[in-house]
Amino acid sequence: MLDKAGITNWFKELQDSICTKLEKADGLGRFQEDIWQRPEGGGGRSRVMTHGNVIEKGGVNFSAVEGALPEKISQALKLGKADFYATGVSIVLHPSNPWVPIIHMNIRYFETQGESGSTWWFGGGIDLTPHYVNQEDAKYFHQQLKAVCDRHNFDHYPKYKKWADDYFYLKHRNETRGVGGIFFDRLNDGEDSKEALFIFVKDVGLAFAPIYTHYMGKYGNQPFGQPHKDWQKIRRGRYVEFNLVWDKGTKFGLDTNGRTESILMSMPPEAIWEYNHIPAKGSLEAKTVKMLEKGIDWINI
Amino acid sequence: MLDKAGITNWFKELQDSICTKLEKADGLGRFQEDIWQRPEGGGGRSRVMTHGNVIEKGGVNFSAVEGALPEKISQALKLGKADFYATGVSIVLHPSNPWVPIIHMNIRYFETQGESGSTWWFGGGIDLTPHYVNQEDAKYFHQQLKAVCDRHNFDHYPKYKKWADDYFYLKHRNETRGVGGIFFDRLNDGEDSKEALFIFVKDVGLAFAPIYTHYMGKYGNQPFGQPHKDWQKIRRGRYVEFNLVWDKGTKFGLDTNGRTESILMSMPPEAIWEYNHIPAKGSLEAKTVKMLEKGIDWINI
Repeated sequence: MLDKAGITNWFKELQDSICTKLEKADGLGRFQEDIWQRPEGGGGRSRVMTHGNVIEKGGVNFSAVEGALPEKISQALKLGKADFYATGVSIVLHPSNPWVPIIHMNIRYFETQGESGSTWWFGGGIDLTPHYVNQEDAKYFHQQLKAVCDRHNFDHYPKYKKWADDYFYLKHRNETRGVGGIFFDRLNDGEDSKEALFIFVKDVGLAFAPIYTHYMGKYGNQPFGQPHKDWQKIRRGRYVEFNLVWDKGTKFGLDTNGRTESILMSMPPEAIWEYNHIPAKGSLEAKTVKMLEKGIDWINI
Repeated sequence: MLDKAGITNWFKELQDSICTKLEKADGLGRFQEDIWQRPEGGGGRSRVMTHGNVIEKGGVNFSAVEGALPEKISQALKLGKADFYATGVSIVLHPSNPWVPIIHMNIRYFETQGESGSTWWFGGGIDLTPHYVNQEDAKYFHQQLKAVCDRHNFDHYPKYKKWADDYFYLKHRNETRGVGGIFFDRLNDGEDSKEALFIFVKDVGLAFAPIYTHYMGKYGNQPFGQPHKDWQKIRRGRYVEFNLVWDKGTKFGLDTNGRTESILMSMPPEAIWEYNHIPAKGSLEAKTVKMLEKGIDWINI
């Protein structure tokens, strides 16, 4: 019988496994662990790496929080007064080399019991934010995700790919955050059983390390110059904007009084804002901006 | 008769006057002007200075936008379907020297006509964010603001000072943004006429340049080292967090489809996020963090 304890434990094991693989691929950086308690219930195990060979700053966080659902969230979710339990693994990695993309992955399980009954769902997503968009790399990323999705349901990839395009979008910039990926939320039993949904979510989680270590190995030692580094910092500024203005996970964390340093591990080590920066016509930077669009079929581009 | 055209024109003149005074005090930097139109109505005149002697990046923006009130805002303001007109001057200045504080000022006029009648109000605020809190400087700041307030109503300063403490607050950090200042919103005619309220708002606007040029002159050439610069970047990260997570002006701008580059001129030129950074015990940095608290009576400290 699949219960929250089983899901929670698997998430913890996934965190262990991903950290081990990333440390191995990085070769230098080690994760620093911080265990934290949430005053209202639950807590987490944050693991942050800084100053690695490839990873300049990154977090692989596990948390399992519970208690009374804050009003702001129960209103937004139209749940009434309720108790909740939320557990998940969240990852954001900022590489030092601008040729290596930023990556984000999150898988989560949420359940609630209250006045209007009880409910549960899974959610998650994984998306890639290259500082320089490269079609081959974007294609590889989407191929891996499609393979994961297709093992479960041929409808998943197109549906969740579109969802990611819509979710990882900076409305105030008319830009996608990067080349997208997959995003899904509120998956509960209907067509698929809870057990089947969890297998899908696990498969997404297990896809993370091989995908990212591929880019670490491919670009971690590629030479770059100051202009590339400057552009990386501008794109990191956009990453900050997305996470603080639009990201629902960040909002949920801050609204549920999660540990701020763990939630904001997603912030880049360094970002710049240049007023009205417009990349030179025909430059690699301009080409990147042109590809920050919804709806690109990266697999068949 | 005080109408929106009169208020709008005065705000434009204030922008001119402040830009002239800041250029003179800076000695090197010049404001770059961008005129922009909002597709749905109105527009603005942004003035941004970068790479000045004292001001590393700063904006003194005027805007006057109008049209149908976006649903998100009419719901938040409980106004129903309505047309709106909003004009104001917004300033954020990021100095290069960490001994010079960051400053923000905004004064604004808003009116709306719709299903449930018509209404108008003034709002505004000014607050100081030192990278290093200095009691003497905070006291000077509050003394100037109290003098402005007291010319109009002895109740204004205590009321608007407390409002600023509550508004310029990073809930997720349990920190104030800096040493506060004054904040007020939805001032309409009751005790004071519209004309009297506008005189108060004008007085706040006119107080800005003398206050800030005081700090520019006092600290613009004070020597500093790399540790001070690093700390400045950490504090700038907090400034980003406040503006993108909590600031209602930023939200209003993004929600009304304002010009993103003008709204986000408030972003610092450069910011860093160090995971779980805690200043050394007894350091100037630790002393600063200790003073980022609500309710400090800076004038009588």
